[in-house]
Amino acid sequence: MNQSDSSSHAALLPDEDIASEDLVHDLESGIEQEVLAALDVQDAARVRDLVDGLHFSDIADLLERLDGDHRSSLVEVLRENFDAEILADLDESVREDVIGLLGFEDVAAALGDLDSDDVVEILEELSDYDQKQVLDAIPDGERQLIQESLSYPEDSAGRMMQREVVTVPTFWTVGDTIDNLRDRAEHDINPLPDHFYSVFVVDPKHKPAGAVHLDTLLRTKRPIKLTEIMEPDIKLIPVTADQEDVAFLFRQRDLAAAPVVDDAGRLVGVITIDDIVDVIDEEHEEDIMRLGGVRGDDLYDAVVDTTKARFSWLLINLLTAILASAVIGLFDATIDQMVALAVLMPIVASMGGNAGTQSLTVAVRALAMKEITATNAGRLIGKELMVGGINGFLFALLAGGVAWGWFGSLALGGVIAMAMIVNMIVAGVAGTAIPILLDKNDIDPAIASSVFITTITDIVGFFVFLGLAALLLL
Amino acid sequence: MNQSDSSSHAALLPDEDIASEDLVHDLESGIEQEVLAALDVQDAARVRDLVDGLHFSDIADLLERLDGDHRSSLVEVLRENFDAEILADLDESVREDVIGLLGFEDVAAALGDLDSDDVVEILEELSDYDQKQVLDAIPDGERQLIQESLSYPEDSAGRMMQREVVTVPTFWTVGDTIDNLRDRAEHDINPLPDHFYSVFVVDPKHKPAGAVHLDTLLRTKRPIKLTEIMEPDIKLIPVTADQEDVAFLFRQRDLAAAPVVDDAGRLVGVITIDDIVDVIDEEHEEDIMRLGGVRGDDLYDAVVDTTKARFSWLLINLLTAILASAVIGLFDATIDQMVALAVLMPIVASMGGNAGTQSLTVAVRALAMKEITATNAGRLIGKELMVGGINGFLFALLAGGVAWGWFGSLALGGVIAMAMIVNMIVAGVAGTAIPILLDKNDIDPAIASSVFITTITDIVGFFVFLGLAALLLL
Repeated sequence: MNQSDSSSHAALLPDEDIASEDLVHDLESGIEQEVLAALDVQDAARVRDLVDGLHFSDIADLLERLDGDHRSSLVEVLRENFDAEILADLDESVREDVIGLLGFEDVAAALGDLDSDDVVEILEELSDYDQKQVLDAIPDGERQLIQESLSYPEDSAGRMMQREVVTVPTFWTVGDTIDNLRDRAEHDINPLPDHFYSVFVVDPKHKPAGAVHLDTLLRTKRPIKLTEIMEPDIKLIPVTADQEDVAFLFRQRDLAAAPVVDDAGRLVGVITIDDIVDVIDEEHEEDIMRLGGVRGDDLYDAVVDTTKARFSWLLINLLTAILASAVIGLFDATIDQMVALAVLMPIVASMGGNAGTQSLTVAVRALAMKEITATNAGRLIGKELMVGGINGFLFALLAGGVAWGWFGSLALGGVIAMAMIVNMIVAGVAGTAIPILLDKNDIDPAIASSVFITTITDIVGFFVFLGLAALLLL
Repeated sequence: MNQSDSSSHAALLPDEDIASEDLVHDLESGIEQEVLAALDVQDAARVRDLVDGLHFSDIADLLERLDGDHRSSLVEVLRENFDAEILADLDESVREDVIGLLGFEDVAAALGDLDSDDVVEILEELSDYDQKQVLDAIPDGERQLIQESLSYPEDSAGRMMQREVVTVPTFWTVGDTIDNLRDRAEHDINPLPDHFYSVFVVDPKHKPAGAVHLDTLLRTKRPIKLTEIMEPDIKLIPVTADQEDVAFLFRQRDLAAAPVVDDAGRLVGVITIDDIVDVIDEEHEEDIMRLGGVRGDDLYDAVVDTTKARFSWLLINLLTAILASAVIGLFDATIDQMVALAVLMPIVASMGGNAGTQSLTVAVRALAMKEITATNAGRLIGKELMVGGINGFLFALLAGGVAWGWFGSLALGGVIAMAMIVNMIVAGVAGTAIPILLDKNDIDPAIASSVFITTITDIVGFFVFLGLAALLLL
């Protein structure tokens, strides 16, 4: 690392300034407002100037943030030589919009520059009609490869993988491999992928025998055989494997790239760590949205679509809220005699709901990270029972004290205290047990748990509090 | 890709079976139960046998899932040649436990096998006392490097980066570079990192001039200069940059590795995409936990610690619940005259809370992904206002109808309908505006928003519903 006699070449290189503030985002430097202004006065040359220096991810961000009119003006400016990488980077609903603006011919032409996995990612999210239109405009050979990828199940390894893989036969040496790579790069026959991390050693049936990291290739002398330096014990990913499982495997094994194989064990593609980052983001988004009662990220969706998507969850919530009201209705005579009960009852329900959400959040996350198994499930539920019991006791004292002070009735304080303990224990146990049970029955715990939990804590909270009051106070 | 005349070597390689079910987890095949049984009968040889074939990540998972007694027995079995990678992989609170069991001497000895970034990751989470004990047991030279890394701010690029970087001077050719790598690998002087993705071209002041991907190095002929093939326009990461910003940059630019530089612009380390995966997981966990009112993942924490950590959030919730009760208390005379109000009032509050949580979840996620800027913030709030209005109108009809049917009062139905519309509009606007405002003031929107939102929707829900009832019904 100490090769320091290179002073004569220093002039060649610019002295770069390190500005921490532009680390994250070129768009944050005000270009966004300037583009808006230029679009407003229809100064296409100025827009092109401004956008020219931007990375495609930043242009995608810009398109996402613009409203409909500005977006379509910007697409017109970008139409010539539209960079397909922008399309790959766009949010789904904005992408649909932009594809509509560009037209199928221009989209198909742009897609030619992308790796197969990116093309598949764009096509799979189009409507059947749009997908067919774009596919029809793609040249025959390319189309076939893409249709093959689209035939694999959604969210499977087959959809994620890149078809372009560098494979070498088992009898090659390091020297053979390097010579071959240089040849292919020079003559543009059997072209290499844009970037790759490993070469895969395959047997004559095209089954993977091992992988060689590029850094291993570079540190090894030319005559050494690849079979001597390859990692033979590599995980093979079935083409039908679920992307979530693939992401888990990459994290668990610290993989950079892994081969994908078909039913016969033949190498058909490769998945790399950068694809995994996208999957992890996607799965995260799914978890967080489902816990929040949203079907998916609807930030860029139209008002009507967002309203519709959120309606169904709210409808379920209306039904459970009516159920809770019905429980209160059972005790209307009790409330009629002692209106303080109506004032205090939301406290018990709300504390239970929050304690339940805490347990639920930890459990849903742990299940997503595959941290809960038969070995520890029972112990975890037991722990939540204790946590709920202790916090229940503490908040029973607090809430009981408040009720006593407020309404001057020690008995009322005692009733709210008892209800609090019961509800918080129920919240802790249900908040952990329900997601575990749902997961066991292959139901996504994130989507269904929160409505279950708050229904339970509402009903138990109202029933125990009002029921005890009816029994003990009247 | 079509080198197929290698049949003579096929026998060399095992025909691997592709079992999809063991893709994800070796532990799921029942080994966990077998280890438990062997630990119970204190059969150390059998335990060692079972654990021997496991990947270190799986052993870490196993240690996490075992209860205290079994965990300490397993640590005893593993003590000799304890694999430090297991430590790096453990959950924080379990790691503390295992370090306690191993003792500082054995821990320090094990850490010698890890890359500097992993050692830092383990040490930074220990208590000051434990950290000092372990550091004291580490050899001088190594200790200095680690202490330097620990001197960078928490969650900064300096903490994440790997100190081992492959650098080459600007005047080298591809051939010079490959020869040097082979030399270093052979003679074990100036040793290479375990794995690397790029070599960095540096000027005499050790400032990065460009990066060369290993695949570029491999496809280029020996006499070509690195300055001709390097990517000159690379993002330099300041050593003090926040890890969240670094992760964003990697995703935005599809980076595999990026150089970290000190204040003077000198290369001091490298961050690779696998470190980013950990950061993404960490940030996501933080978001999801905070939205759920939990300080952090407490799955493996002791009962007391979990209880304490959750208490403070619940205490805030108790205060806001009392506030909502106080609003109800304002109308106790109204409820006294019409107990149906007490029965119905949780419906309005609950629907508002859920609609608010939906908007909030989308906004918090969008802020975390840096998708909300000055350009679109106003438009997004406007959209949520409309979504809240439309859904509010629909649920006003439904809830109004239910109330009318249930209590036979059209006027009561009208009051709940009006309250529903108001509360759901408030929920949509507040659910989006509050996280944006918090984020603008550098407060994490995930941690503070949900308590704000539900407090607002509770208070507005109760106040508008009971207030309108007092005005119009009595």
